[in-house]
Amino acid sequence: MTNLADLAELQAIQVWDDVVARRVQGEQLTLAVVELAPNAIVPEHRHPNEQCGLVISGQVTFRIADEERVLGPGGTWRIVANTPHEVVTGPDGAVVIDVFAPARSDWEDRPFVGSREEPATPLWPPVQ
Amino acid sequence: MTNLADLAELQAIQVWDDVVARRVQGEQLTLAVVELAPNAIVPEHRHPNEQCGLVISGQVTFRIADEERVLGPGGTWRIVANTPHEVVTGPDGAVVIDVFAPARSDWEDRPFVGSREEPATPLWPPVQ
Repeated sequence: MTNLADLAELQAIQVWDDVVARRVQGEQLTLAVVELAPNAIVPEHRHPNEQCGLVISGQVTFRIADEERVLGPGGTWRIVANTPHEVVTGPDGAVVIDVFAPARSDWEDRPFVGSREEPATPLWPPVQ
Repeated sequence: MTNLADLAELQAIQVWDDVVARRVQGEQLTLAVVELAPNAIVPEHRHPNEQCGLVISGQVTFRIADEERVLGPGGTWRIVANTPHEVVTGPDGAVVIDVFAPARSDWEDRPFVGSREEPATPLWPPVQ
């Protein structure tokens, strides 16, 4: 396993209908670059993994328990274990970073997007 | 404590001479947006915290043990606990994401950059 990889080399997975992720999988944490489709709704959910993250591009409306805020690039969140949270995107969708500790082992059953021979192209970074 | 914050609202700290960070501090992990100055050298070091990350803008030459690679935006790293690693930037510097588990408590003694009244402006995202 290589420890230095370009995002485009990481196999994309379909986390939910409108949500695709590429993961740097550690032993104690998961770092994911997550693509949310336009007008995506990630309904309220919770998990034992702590989650922090930030917006890279686009805009999201993020709610953690009773706290809600519209976030653009540089907008951050901090969700301690088992706290309910919900995310909605606007018409442009969003690319965000989500990190989890402990590592998310429950994503192992998610289907791949594209194939190893023809991997899906990341929405971010823009191709030079 | 708010759990939804813009990067510009987070107090910047001077991690090393050429390295400034803003942190989303969880209980089990630290998510940091890290600014590396042009031609910065972060000499080989190691820590018990696992570290994963990626480049947001600019370019770095990253070495983990015997593995080395030049990484631009979207370039990622995965450093399991106590593995020696080193980073060097080019003439444009870089902004990167670094995440750590467990959370980095050893950064608590780092000095602030700017003040709460006049916080330093993040290098990324670009001001709209």
